[in-house]
Amino acid sequence: MSIADITSPEDLRALPDDQLPALVEDIRAELIATVAKQGGHLSSNLGVVELTVALHRVFDVRKDVIIFDTGHQSYVHKLLTGRLDAFRKLRQDDGCSGFPNRAESPFDYFGVGHSGTAVSAALGFAAARDRTGGNGKVVAVLGDGALGCGSSLEAINNLAVTTRDFILILNDNKMSISPNVGALSHCLSRVISGRSYNRFKVFCANAVQRIPMIGPRLRSWISRLDSAAKQLFLPTAFFEELGLRYIGPIDGHDLPQLTDTLHRVSQLHGPRLVHVLTVKGKGCRFAEKKPTCFHGTAPFNPQTGDLLQPKPKATFSATLGQTLCTLHQEDPRIVAITAGMPEGTGLHKFAKAFPNAFYDVGIAEAHAAAFAAGLAAAGQRPIMAVYASFSQRAADYVFHDACLQELPVIFCLDRAGVVADGPTHHGIQDVAFWRACPNLAVLQPADQDDLAAMLRLALTRHHPVVIRYPAGNAAPVTAQHRPLEWGKAEILEAGSAPVALWAVGRETAIALQAAELLRERGVAITVVNARFTIPFDAGLMRRLLNDGMTIVTLEDHCLEGGFGSIARDSLADIPDARIVKLGWPRAVLPNGPVVSLRQRFSLTPTSIAETIRGLLTRSPAPLHDGFSLAATPLYSLTSSRTP
Amino acid sequence: MSIADITSPEDLRALPDDQLPALVEDIRAELIATVAKQGGHLSSNLGVVELTVALHRVFDVRKDVIIFDTGHQSYVHKLLTGRLDAFRKLRQDDGCSGFPNRAESPFDYFGVGHSGTAVSAALGFAAARDRTGGNGKVVAVLGDGALGCGSSLEAINNLAVTTRDFILILNDNKMSISPNVGALSHCLSRVISGRSYNRFKVFCANAVQRIPMIGPRLRSWISRLDSAAKQLFLPTAFFEELGLRYIGPIDGHDLPQLTDTLHRVSQLHGPRLVHVLTVKGKGCRFAEKKPTCFHGTAPFNPQTGDLLQPKPKATFSATLGQTLCTLHQEDPRIVAITAGMPEGTGLHKFAKAFPNAFYDVGIAEAHAAAFAAGLAAAGQRPIMAVYASFSQRAADYVFHDACLQELPVIFCLDRAGVVADGPTHHGIQDVAFWRACPNLAVLQPADQDDLAAMLRLALTRHHPVVIRYPAGNAAPVTAQHRPLEWGKAEILEAGSAPVALWAVGRETAIALQAAELLRERGVAITVVNARFTIPFDAGLMRRLLNDGMTIVTLEDHCLEGGFGSIARDSLADIPDARIVKLGWPRAVLPNGPVVSLRQRFSLTPTSIAETIRGLLTRSPAPLHDGFSLAATPLYSLTSSRTP
Repeated sequence: MSIADITSPEDLRALPDDQLPALVEDIRAELIATVAKQGGHLSSNLGVVELTVALHRVFDVRKDVIIFDTGHQSYVHKLLTGRLDAFRKLRQDDGCSGFPNRAESPFDYFGVGHSGTAVSAALGFAAARDRTGGNGKVVAVLGDGALGCGSSLEAINNLAVTTRDFILILNDNKMSISPNVGALSHCLSRVISGRSYNRFKVFCANAVQRIPMIGPRLRSWISRLDSAAKQLFLPTAFFEELGLRYIGPIDGHDLPQLTDTLHRVSQLHGPRLVHVLTVKGKGCRFAEKKPTCFHGTAPFNPQTGDLLQPKPKATFSATLGQTLCTLHQEDPRIVAITAGMPEGTGLHKFAKAFPNAFYDVGIAEAHAAAFAAGLAAAGQRPIMAVYASFSQRAADYVFHDACLQELPVIFCLDRAGVVADGPTHHGIQDVAFWRACPNLAVLQPADQDDLAAMLRLALTRHHPVVIRYPAGNAAPVTAQHRPLEWGKAEILEAGSAPVALWAVGRETAIALQAAELLRERGVAITVVNARFTIPFDAGLMRRLLNDGMTIVTLEDHCLEGGFGSIARDSLADIPDARIVKLGWPRAVLPNGPVVSLRQRFSLTPTSIAETIRGLLTRSPAPLHDGFSLAATPLYSLTSSRTP
Repeated sequence: MSIADITSPEDLRALPDDQLPALVEDIRAELIATVAKQGGHLSSNLGVVELTVALHRVFDVRKDVIIFDTGHQSYVHKLLTGRLDAFRKLRQDDGCSGFPNRAESPFDYFGVGHSGTAVSAALGFAAARDRTGGNGKVVAVLGDGALGCGSSLEAINNLAVTTRDFILILNDNKMSISPNVGALSHCLSRVISGRSYNRFKVFCANAVQRIPMIGPRLRSWISRLDSAAKQLFLPTAFFEELGLRYIGPIDGHDLPQLTDTLHRVSQLHGPRLVHVLTVKGKGCRFAEKKPTCFHGTAPFNPQTGDLLQPKPKATFSATLGQTLCTLHQEDPRIVAITAGMPEGTGLHKFAKAFPNAFYDVGIAEAHAAAFAAGLAAAGQRPIMAVYASFSQRAADYVFHDACLQELPVIFCLDRAGVVADGPTHHGIQDVAFWRACPNLAVLQPADQDDLAAMLRLALTRHHPVVIRYPAGNAAPVTAQHRPLEWGKAEILEAGSAPVALWAVGRETAIALQAAELLRERGVAITVVNARFTIPFDAGLMRRLLNDGMTIVTLEDHCLEGGFGSIARDSLADIPDARIVKLGWPRAVLPNGPVVSLRQRFSLTPTSIAETIRGLLTRSPAPLHDGFSLAATPLYSLTSSRTP
């Protein structure tokens, strides 16, 4: 039995039980083969093969709603709903998105990229069903990592008062991205003991059935023993206090037991939670061994698990980790905080070296920011590192707890800019909000040396600072930077042509490549490394504009509300100032690798060089203003896919 | 004994027990007198008089840290830490802030205005103490409403793994702002039964002590009975699953018992929770009777509780409630969602009329937004109403769940603009973020007619829409509006002078007054009601600019990232375009009533008329650009207080 034979949910439901083991095996092979080729999320998907098959056997996605939290666990669901071909082009221009996507399939009821939204969204579906008299089931699949996320907990608190029919599947693999943290994690881990308890219960039940006459009484006795033991061994109380009936724990890799349990659960009433134990990376030697490495991975050799291309040595994340280790030795008040991703942010080495100065709070960005502000108020020097896109979860806390109180927290935003994971993960909106936050500075390093210098400089300040940088290569863009000075940009190349390419952060490397292409055509432009977004070097930009130069801003951020917007707005008093903005439109960007997005939106060195050549020859008309907020129709999801 | 005699924490600690009842009474009288005069938060503060006195008797705020969540409950703390005079000028220019404020007192360890930050911040203090070998106690006081807030739950989940010494006081008055919702609330409400249990326990203990010989054995029997009963009656399990030792429930108005319990708790170890039962409005007849009305109140007659000035009849909140009632009758798919404030948002009437179409999720903005997106995905037409400042809590959910999926959720943001509650509550940052959110429109009504029309128009759209409006008066600004058209502004007055005052939302009323003042001086300016912020009417503005007019934008929003920024950025291609921005600086605004803030920042009709007269006579130099993000020193909390 091959996954290629399953072209619709009906195909799966029609399959005889005895063909399921082969199907499960084939799905695993398909997952490994595709992720090995395209990169993507492996461990979490390998862990939910049986669970997803069981869900689709028991529930009918044509009328029942299944929503996967975070979506790292939705590949199997995609395979079972007729998307094999698209899946094989996972995350490519014309392939599947890495996450559930309403535009991709009617069976993707809700798109999820960030954690902790599925229970809320599924409650929306349940409430709509209740209002309209429908009878479909609503199922949310929540990972144990996302359980500790504030919005999941808010939703669970609201669950039993919102609907009387809801099935919450807790996919418990003792990990979110990294091993899990928090009291709830401890609470769930009692299930380890629960396993022995379960074995004991099964043993008793079997024994009882073999003594038919005495059976019923013994069974009732065992049932009483059961509920007493449950209280002791299982996290029943936590969920039952929240109004959920607790069912479990179930072995998430025992397909018959899973299917049977889900079937029984589907016929129960009331809000209910099924606690399913799974193993991240299940069935793949190297992914089981290193679930964190294969959480999100680049292409690898499917036999050995070795990456096809070695990871870049110089990354911003690695620089953060190393620099903080050095800085902490100089000033032990320096502490580091992350929200569930010590590896992703490069803090794992710091965590190992200085465990008492490191806090991983789990997927809890809001708490992380307020906690950091508390540490700063108490005299420590906290550095909080999260992904830029996830920092939006903490927006109000950065504002309310750090900025309003002018507390010196340093927020390091990794993966700032467009990434391979798609629109939910692009870190290209946050600057727009930081702009309105009092007391907050925003710095963007061009390379590892800039980042290290910015960390040092930020530590001398008495207000909150955001330092944002993209994934990947942080190799030096210049042999020798000018010393970093507060609010000052750095001219890397001074040219004779009346154009200055003012690049923000890592875009400096792209700008230098564009300048090189132009130089080959005999045009010498000026290249500036912005370094500061807030406060930016308005003095220098004003001088260049007054000299009659055109400024071209280049940033890995949304054009609306980014650096270019700030510059235009701040220097609006200069008559005839010509500031052309290059960056991403305010739109849902299509799927695809970063390099092909750059091509589609004219942000490669070649396109940028072309744009500048056009500016030097044609009349002054700003480019890229098709993306403005003027009274044009808003971008639709469809139209934005074919810009 | 009078509160005037308590000028420092030491004064209180030195007071003999028998003088405390008189002090408590005097504090209540002071609270009622001051709030009656200045307006402010009454009910919540009346509820914590004994609790706050007990905390200050047991803990020494010179070394122990006490952090009040939300800060609605911090007036008594202010009175007990030597701020009586400033308190009497509560929320006035030179008086106390309505919330804890680090700049105001060394005993305000952490500023809190939004809910659900205290546990996180206090954990920061505890972690800092643990790292530096301190021995002060750290106490967080959390309301039961804020307990259901995601960041509180995230923090509690992290509590036991972060520190071994922490005291969490749960101030349980069965209310947050409105009566509380959610499973946790049900869970806590079992304490009602717990009260009987407590009485029973005390009765037994007393009885036992009277039989000295048989006592110890009976007492041990009672102790066993106790723990069994606790499991049944009290929310012990929920907190103990989270690693907190549960102590309670305690009568929050029994000062000796409270003091005694807190004293014992202070000597225990480990993370511990004290469950204190209080009555909102305690000791004030009308506040006890209508705790929601006196949660936050305008000045009133201290004898009767009658408001000194009747509430404005035409408010935006009331218009929202009324319009939604009408619209729901036309289309039953219309549902309303709020996050803990049905009265504040004007939805209480809708809630009463259509209980099956109304969802109050408690203080859980993040869940509310994702839930609304789920409802929209399931075919309903959700309207989510929260305060603008609190909407920042949902920023990522608006972006990730509604905008990326282009789901037609209507977000109604009340209290948008500067309010009487101070910097934490001003709704003047959010537009900056919405600007970078794809598919999102932002509309701002000038009056009640505009709001009703905008709700109708938004319901015809297939993408998310933000409608934002301020507190207070929504009386019509014109006898007859032009019909509302997507993306179009409305010219209310066409003048001969080369200045158009382009007012956003309710500022239109201010603009018309300024125009009237100018007309009296013989200057006829053009007044535009912007209506749309995203997409704004760039066509009209372009035409006016091309005609050589100066555009003056007027908005109740931060100047950085607001309407003026959008306009300048979008029309940067027009040579010599002169757009002058009026609004609030990117700074922590000082305390004070809205009218005096308008005076300080030149935003009264008179100042605006002056500014425009200046523009008409002087050379073109944009005003208010002292607040730009150019490379100037960042505003400090201090400097921003004396702008």
